[in-house]
Amino acid sequence: MESVKALFFDVFGTVVDWRTSIVRELASFGQMKGIDADWTGFADAWRGLYQPAMEEVRSGRRDWMILDELHRESLVRLLGQFGIGAVSDGEIDDLNRAWHRLDPWPDCVDGLTRLKTKYILSTLSNGNTALLVNMAKRAGLPWDVVLGAETARAYKPLPEAYRRNMALLALKPHQCMMVAAHNDDLKAATALGMRAAFVARPTEYGPGQTRDVAPDEDWDVITDGMTGLATALDC
Amino acid sequence: MESVKALFFDVFGTVVDWRTSIVRELASFGQMKGIDADWTGFADAWRGLYQPAMEEVRSGRRDWMILDELHRESLVRLLGQFGIGAVSDGEIDDLNRAWHRLDPWPDCVDGLTRLKTKYILSTLSNGNTALLVNMAKRAGLPWDVVLGAETARAYKPLPEAYRRNMALLALKPHQCMMVAAHNDDLKAATALGMRAAFVARPTEYGPGQTRDVAPDEDWDVITDGMTGLATALDC
Repeated sequence: MESVKALFFDVFGTVVDWRTSIVRELASFGQMKGIDADWTGFADAWRGLYQPAMEEVRSGRRDWMILDELHRESLVRLLGQFGIGAVSDGEIDDLNRAWHRLDPWPDCVDGLTRLKTKYILSTLSNGNTALLVNMAKRAGLPWDVVLGAETARAYKPLPEAYRRNMALLALKPHQCMMVAAHNDDLKAATALGMRAAFVARPTEYGPGQTRDVAPDEDWDVITDGMTGLATALDC
Repeated sequence: MESVKALFFDVFGTVVDWRTSIVRELASFGQMKGIDADWTGFADAWRGLYQPAMEEVRSGRRDWMILDELHRESLVRLLGQFGIGAVSDGEIDDLNRAWHRLDPWPDCVDGLTRLKTKYILSTLSNGNTALLVNMAKRAGLPWDVVLGAETARAYKPLPEAYRRNMALLALKPHQCMMVAAHNDDLKAATALGMRAAFVARPTEYGPGQTRDVAPDEDWDVITDGMTGLATALDC
């Protein structure tokens, strides 16, 4: 662990509580437009289209597209499915940028601030750069550098998504630790030689969550928040 | 000016005093190795090879290479020219990373910290990402995002170096201000529609500096440091 120089953070679910934030944004949109709908169901459906949309790109069936564009396509589709009409392009753009306005879990700003004293803190998210920068600015997330799918032009868990971002920092895998609430992300990272920290977020998908409620493997660090990670890493 | 969302900073010369720092690093290397040489002349010669090395890449005569690699080639060449032998590959690597250990001008940390309250602060440097991140970490430069030639795969003043980095932030040119001590950098940026701030650094190249001692044009902001820029932008 002493060779670790940089921590790479998954963001959606690990650092930010996307579900609560997206439900809030959708409800606020509904109130403004005078539309009543199952906004929690809408949020879950929107997130449900996340992996299938990225898989089209990962598989090569579609050319490279950033997440803002994939999110927008999914949003337009869901507005139709939920029978919501009379929404302007500008309103759709603004609602789509709800993903730029996600709130962090309460432990994040404190924990990351402690971790920053000792490590390079980087995102390694499937979110695009503008999304991650706008989110960090609003939420006070103290990243040293903002990397992810867009700087790699590859979506996790493809190996290139990790490798190209480690190369941008001129670091070898054993000098990098992936921090995520998702076992699959850590599996892909450790397969390349990265270290792994599991941060349990058992309500990311709401009260009935079944996936990723616990670590699948004996990861280097297992904790339940960023302050716990800071303590585990002597920060 | 009210439309400006992000400030893009040139780094070498504008934010950091590369010359004083490189002379210090070379002298320290000389002391360690028991070598006496004209280290100021060596530093100026090293920087003198900077534009010619990048021009080989800009022109397409060479494939894309990051600045750390170009710096290292120039260093090896100059060690030969200065008759300095018996230097190991590891020592050359460490000396080459002197460019990761440059000190900021004294106004930078204060000024950037003020500017960060209102704007997205991004590098837009010909330095590679690892160089800029390591420099910021050591010097306490509070960037929101680290962009430059490596994220654009193009060296300034090619238009792609500016355009691709603005695209990463999903911003239009009038939402971006280039901050530089070099008139040519501002000319290239404003040709694309960016705003421009000239920060005078009349001793960047030493006491006899003749280039860029004053602004060539009536740039949007003309100042002599980052605290002056913060005041000009009401931060």
